[in-house]
Amino acid sequence: MIKSIVLIGSGNVATHLGIALKKVGCKIDQVYSPNKEHAAILAKKLKTKSCSTIESINQEADLYIMAVKDDAITELTQHLKLQTSPQPSRKVGTSTPKERGKIIVHTSGSASMEVLKNVSKNIGVFYPLQTFSKDIKVEINQVPFCIEANNKATEKLLIQLAKTISYNVNIVSSEQRKTIHVAAVFACNFSNHLFSISEKILNDNKISFDILKPLIYETIYKIEKHSPTQVQTGPAKRKDKKTIQAHLEFLKTYPEFRKIYRELSESIEKA
Amino acid sequence: MIKSIVLIGSGNVATHLGIALKKVGCKIDQVYSPNKEHAAILAKKLKTKSCSTIESINQEADLYIMAVKDDAITELTQHLKLQTSPQPSRKVGTSTPKERGKIIVHTSGSASMEVLKNVSKNIGVFYPLQTFSKDIKVEINQVPFCIEANNKATEKLLIQLAKTISYNVNIVSSEQRKTIHVAAVFACNFSNHLFSISEKILNDNKISFDILKPLIYETIYKIEKHSPTQVQTGPAKRKDKKTIQAHLEFLKTYPEFRKIYRELSESIEKA
Repeated sequence: MIKSIVLIGSGNVATHLGIALKKVGCKIDQVYSPNKEHAAILAKKLKTKSCSTIESINQEADLYIMAVKDDAITELTQHLKLQTSPQPSRKVGTSTPKERGKIIVHTSGSASMEVLKNVSKNIGVFYPLQTFSKDIKVEINQVPFCIEANNKATEKLLIQLAKTISYNVNIVSSEQRKTIHVAAVFACNFSNHLFSISEKILNDNKISFDILKPLIYETIYKIEKHSPTQVQTGPAKRKDKKTIQAHLEFLKTYPEFRKIYRELSESIEKA
Repeated sequence: MIKSIVLIGSGNVATHLGIALKKVGCKIDQVYSPNKEHAAILAKKLKTKSCSTIESINQEADLYIMAVKDDAITELTQHLKLQTSPQPSRKVGTSTPKERGKIIVHTSGSASMEVLKNVSKNIGVFYPLQTFSKDIKVEINQVPFCIEANNKATEKLLIQLAKTISYNVNIVSSEQRKTIHVAAVFACNFSNHLFSISEKILNDNKISFDILKPLIYETIYKIEKHSPTQVQTGPAKRKDKKTIQAHLEFLKTYPEFRKIYRELSESIEKA
């Protein structure tokens, strides 16, 4: 069982994971961030120690969770090497996790698991499929966790750990995870940007974004039980050229949004 | 007070409005659709009569709700003329709605109110800001209604009627309504299309769209209390060029989605 954890990173994902894991009884041994202050802030939240140099990362934990940007993963893996614990004299047949070697995982949607291969012999991915903002509470037990590991023993331990914090744990290959990440960018990041665009258009005309919220809730409610393709509505879906033309005319003062309007309408018409 | 109503149209909006208005005690006098069968189906649902020629539209109702495509509004207004009721001999000071002349409204997000001006002297708009699919129940009392009228008496009657079916009734000019409609296309129709795209990408790779749902719910939950611009996340927001490049590479087999990915990422980076 995984008992002690070092968090590498101090951003949104590290914060949410650290809090959730501590809550279920894991020991957070240390928080590392090259930014001393950031490391200290998260360490304080988790009532643990912090460090800001790779050399001072504690070598005694069961699991190292690297929750940093993809670029930083590559850089860190060039400098971080987890020592294999010395084999203590012991009776034949006994074994502790430490003797198995430490586990290192990253939490990225797109980085391959293999980028970790020089750090330890037990590597994996612990990817929470969620949009984390630092100060917004997330129901972590609803978050789908995508787990990958380079051996069965590590996979088992990671699944066990994920299940202590979430009901939704999945074994997902690097290839599948990349697919899910691309799809998530469309469904989450891009749709949020569309909400931003509509907020801007409304606010520029002194109308509150609130008027759209029941419509947005209904859009989501519909896809609970239906395929989004089946419940598509709107001018492009009904090929209402007149309305599309009027909207493009309206958007003349927003050339960027106009381009997006045209692109998405064409894509809906073709679908 | 508006008591009797003729529905012109038999699509999603006519159906949902008809059912809601009947439920609060309005008398639906008749359903018109050029498609005889469609008119009959909705009339049956509403336990009323149907007709399929403009000449047979009943001239006795208080309100005519034209819930048809924008192109059809223009065409109908060329042929429909509501008669003014003959003034009965009456005592000075008494007046009934019928003597005021009938009201005609359309339910379009983008058509101007003025397109109705040749049909009656009392015209207006009764626009439910919602995405209606025929067989999906809508909580109509949450739907924002956007009301417009060409005189105060008509405005008052339309507001009164809207308030019998919804808690969210707003007086909105044609210009504002057009703005809201454009914003709604971005927030609702286009975001739904993004869900479709992500569903297709996942299904092509034998992954269920369900895995994305908690993420979609969280995206919506966030904007309940925060501006979408403030809670934007994802590779484009954090200018993570490496991930964006990997996603564009992944999308090579989806040239159309790739173009949308690039467009929206650029727009997020600029925001």
